[in-house]
Amino acid sequence: MNNNPINIRVIPSLFTLANLLFGFLALALTMDGKFKLAAGLIILSTLMDSMDGKVARKLSVSSDFGYELDSLSDLVSFGVAPAILTYRALLQDQLGYWGLALAAIFALCGAVRLARFNVLHISNYFVGVPITFAGGFMALILLFHSMLPWPIYAICLAILAFLMVSTFKVPKPGV
Amino acid sequence: MNNNPINIRVIPSLFTLANLLFGFLALALTMDGKFKLAAGLIILSTLMDSMDGKVARKLSVSSDFGYELDSLSDLVSFGVAPAILTYRALLQDQLGYWGLALAAIFALCGAVRLARFNVLHISNYFVGVPITFAGGFMALILLFHSMLPWPIYAICLAILAFLMVSTFKVPKPGV
Repeated sequence: MNNNPINIRVIPSLFTLANLLFGFLALALTMDGKFKLAAGLIILSTLMDSMDGKVARKLSVSSDFGYELDSLSDLVSFGVAPAILTYRALLQDQLGYWGLALAAIFALCGAVRLARFNVLHISNYFVGVPITFAGGFMALILLFHSMLPWPIYAICLAILAFLMVSTFKVPKPGV
Repeated sequence: MNNNPINIRVIPSLFTLANLLFGFLALALTMDGKFKLAAGLIILSTLMDSMDGKVARKLSVSSDFGYELDSLSDLVSFGVAPAILTYRALLQDQLGYWGLALAAIFALCGAVRLARFNVLHISNYFVGVPITFAGGFMALILLFHSMLPWPIYAICLAILAFLMVSTFKVPKPGV
């Protein structure tokens, strides 16, 4: 593995950093009221997230550094960004501080799930719904935030928060 | 360690989750234009962050789960939240997209630093400036954002981003 030149070893992390960058930009766009663009960027983050692991395995350059960076990026792009986006686009007006509390619970449950995943080292199934799915799903339905009734978003946020910290076994695609 | 009742084992993680919660709320307050309150919450996060490790050692309940949760929370509270706050309070008006790029670089450098720290396992000194210091320092000077000239914030953000990913040895307090 150490025989690979540095430019090959960093390639998976570039996808991971792109995931984080899109999550960060989604937060900035949310502040400017560009909710659909922000949702689109979170969906782009899910694509980057699905690439980094594949590229690392293909190039045989998986690393602990890569795993850590992946978790950190996932919390921003699929925990914090969708929560802030849902709050700002819908829940702030409809639920006020209760909406903020719900959004915060989603982000905190996402962090607990990621920390638990990193110490469990189970590779053939997921324990609880992955944060990438939860955040990606929220972003997907937020593309239609002006068409669907707002309670759907509050209910989805609450259910997905619970499912992330639940101990249900979720099959991994391809395993 | 396993003899401790569950309520004692979770106490350090409650401080860590408080750190993350304050970082998340700082982002929400930044969106509402409450910049000083947001900066104050990030400073509160630094207090929570200094408590969790101390409490875990005092109660002899340090865990890998706690370390992972700590890193995840630190990226939000001391990487993403100060970057978005600096961008929104000052750099967006002054530098536009260049300000957004600078803020994103700060957050990305914070993530790289945290991922590197987690795999290096060096306990007696820091490699590069800790993200808690970088984010806490930005929050502290952002309390005075209406009094100091804006280029100070852009320069501090750039220097701290570089110092986080640098390989300088920084002494740990108390070691």
